Amino acid sequence: MDIGVASLTELVTTTADGRTVTARERTADLVLIAEHAEAVGLDGFAVGEHHSPDFVVSSPAVLLAAVAARTSRIRLGTAVTVLGALDPVRLFEDFATLDLLSDGRAEITVGRGAFPEPFALFGVDMRDYDVAFEEKLELLLQLNRDEQITWRGRTRPPLTGALIAPRPVQDALPIWVGVAGTPASAQRAGRLGLPLMIGSLGMPIEQAAQLADVYRTAGQAHPDRLRLGIGAHLHITGDDTEARGLYPYYRDFLGPKHPGGSGLRVTPDFFEAGFHPRATRYIGGAAEIGDKLAALYAATRFDRFQALVGWGGQPLSLTRRSLDRFAADVVPPLRALADD
Amino acid sequence: MDIGVASLTELVTTTADGRTVTARERTADLVLIAEHAEAVGLDGFAVGEHHSPDFVVSSPAVLLAAVAARTSRIRLGTAVTVLGALDPVRLFEDFATLDLLSDGRAEITVGRGAFPEPFALFGVDMRDYDVAFEEKLELLLQLNRDEQITWRGRTRPPLTGALIAPRPVQDALPIWVGVAGTPASAQRAGRLGLPLMIGSLGMPIEQAAQLADVYRTAGQAHPDRLRLGIGAHLHITGDDTEARGLYPYYRDFLGPKHPGGSGLRVTPDFFEAGFHPRATRYIGGAAEIGDKLAALYAATRFDRFQALVGWGGQPLSLTRRSLDRFAADVVPPLRALADD
Repeated sequence: MDIGVASLTELVTTTADGRTVTARERTADLVLIAEHAEAVGLDGFAVGEHHSPDFVVSSPAVLLAAVAARTSRIRLGTAVTVLGALDPVRLFEDFATLDLLSDGRAEITVGRGAFPEPFALFGVDMRDYDVAFEEKLELLLQLNRDEQITWRGRTRPPLTGALIAPRPVQDALPIWVGVAGTPASAQRAGRLGLPLMIGSLGMPIEQAAQLADVYRTAGQAHPDRLRLGIGAHLHITGDDTEARGLYPYYRDFLGPKHPGGSGLRVTPDFFEAGFHPRATRYIGGAAEIGDKLAALYAATRFDRFQALVGWGGQPLSLTRRSLDRFAADVVPPLRALADD
Repeated sequence: MDIGVASLTELVTTTADGRTVTARERTADLVLIAEHAEAVGLDGFAVGEHHSPDFVVSSPAVLLAAVAARTSRIRLGTAVTVLGALDPVRLFEDFATLDLLSDGRAEITVGRGAFPEPFALFGVDMRDYDVAFEEKLELLLQLNRDEQITWRGRTRPPLTGALIAPRPVQDALPIWVGVAGTPASAQRAGRLGLPLMIGSLGMPIEQAAQLADVYRTAGQAHPDRLRLGIGAHLHITGDDTEARGLYPYYRDFLGPKHPGGSGLRVTPDFFEAGFHPRATRYIGGAAEIGDKLAALYAATRFDRFQALVGWGGQPLSLTRRSLDRFAADVVPPLRALADD
């Protein structure tokens, strides 16, 4: 079982505990979180891609290259790459370069995207949202397979015998499909035989299990190519009081990052709902979260778990402590489940 | 005086001395060259951007982010960024991220480009070569100045009140204009008050001096904003025999990188011509190259010298020895000239 961490890279400039955080500090902290994840024995680090002042990472491959230079073992990926708004050629070049720099540790998780900014920024009409994603995924898979590309589509200039360089160290970059809850997306990933990452983000275990079912049923023709990942918010605390005390960070994680900004309105009730034993959110003490993750595993048989950590403007020391507890007390029994 | 190194990142897969080099090894060596440049006290490291299997770097910001994580002082730039073929928004995001990761050491040198590949790859019609460069330079300068951008042009989708993130650590990214010999380009850089990097590549000192004149004359309105850089091929050897012996590497540096590939035909006579005291190529012993660079300085009063090193498939040990000699015996008297 493959267990890693991720960050959306949101930037809370004035934190719940009254600190001021700059983009420079947040960027440096992300690299330190990745280093710590490797140090405690986890398997991966991934960052989101957003094109807004509410987040510090708009160029995941650039951030991950710095992480590559500071680590030697963890896999480096995205959570997620908004493929429809991007150029698959540039994306492939960036991640092939990352793969060379990291000795074969680069991955991409592509998603349809939840924000309009990148589409506006890169001139992709939202009416082309679906065709852009499908076309570009097809092109990305072709780039991953062949060095020389001839391609023609609606959402990117044509390629005629183009040689794309460099090639990655790995035979091909692992390309995951990220979904937030759309069964049709899970189904397509299964049909294509691509690994699937479910951004569970608090959904009931039953819903995650249903998506996993849809995926595996659609992928029956090539079961050996299927891999299921689940991503979820996580923070391991010393006790329940500490967990409840994280509310202001969680509110700022999902809510507006600055006065007047956009985001979810996270009420105390909303926060409380995530503590339900069947909610796919993992904030709490190691014993409780160990049980919740065992239940998630029983229901979905995931191959990878990706913990969203270091959120909401919490100080780095808090993230580190949570990772220490996670690695020491939650991960070993979780890994043991897969060995049974 | 600011003295750095650069690489075009060409990949000679079978070297003159019979080794086989992979893209992975070449990439790792580039990071080591940058580390060594910092270790011996140089000021900068830059890489070219090419979109062809003859070169390993198509994503300079990704490579430079790994260098940023391994160094603490040298400036990180490009030699050059083919702006006309790229999206200035993505470029700015990548280098702003690099600036955050490197604590304010990122730079961009934009050039018009000598190869057709990137234009074909990114769908820029070569008939738009000039307008694409001019429009995109204007947009890049605007991105560097303002966080919120409204822009409309022919060669990239329009932007309407777009917020571009992240912002760099530096007030603005240093944006140099790279020219290979076109006086009109030097003139425009002067008129815009942008720093100029002349890729001298063997031209007679007199031609470099003429370009410098054109630049400074065009920039008379804002002399304090002008900075002149000169880039040139360099390798410091122990003696003249060693310098002459570098011919096969130099041939593979500028010539075809693989059987049937494209490139200059570098004859022994062509190689020999570069040893002329007034040729802006710096291969030879420290005393001789010290004199040649002093003459270049006398003729141009450059503010920055950028040495193209580690070329043609030469082993890393050779590059390191050359950098050691350069830093020990050539750089100190050169820096002293500027202090006079």
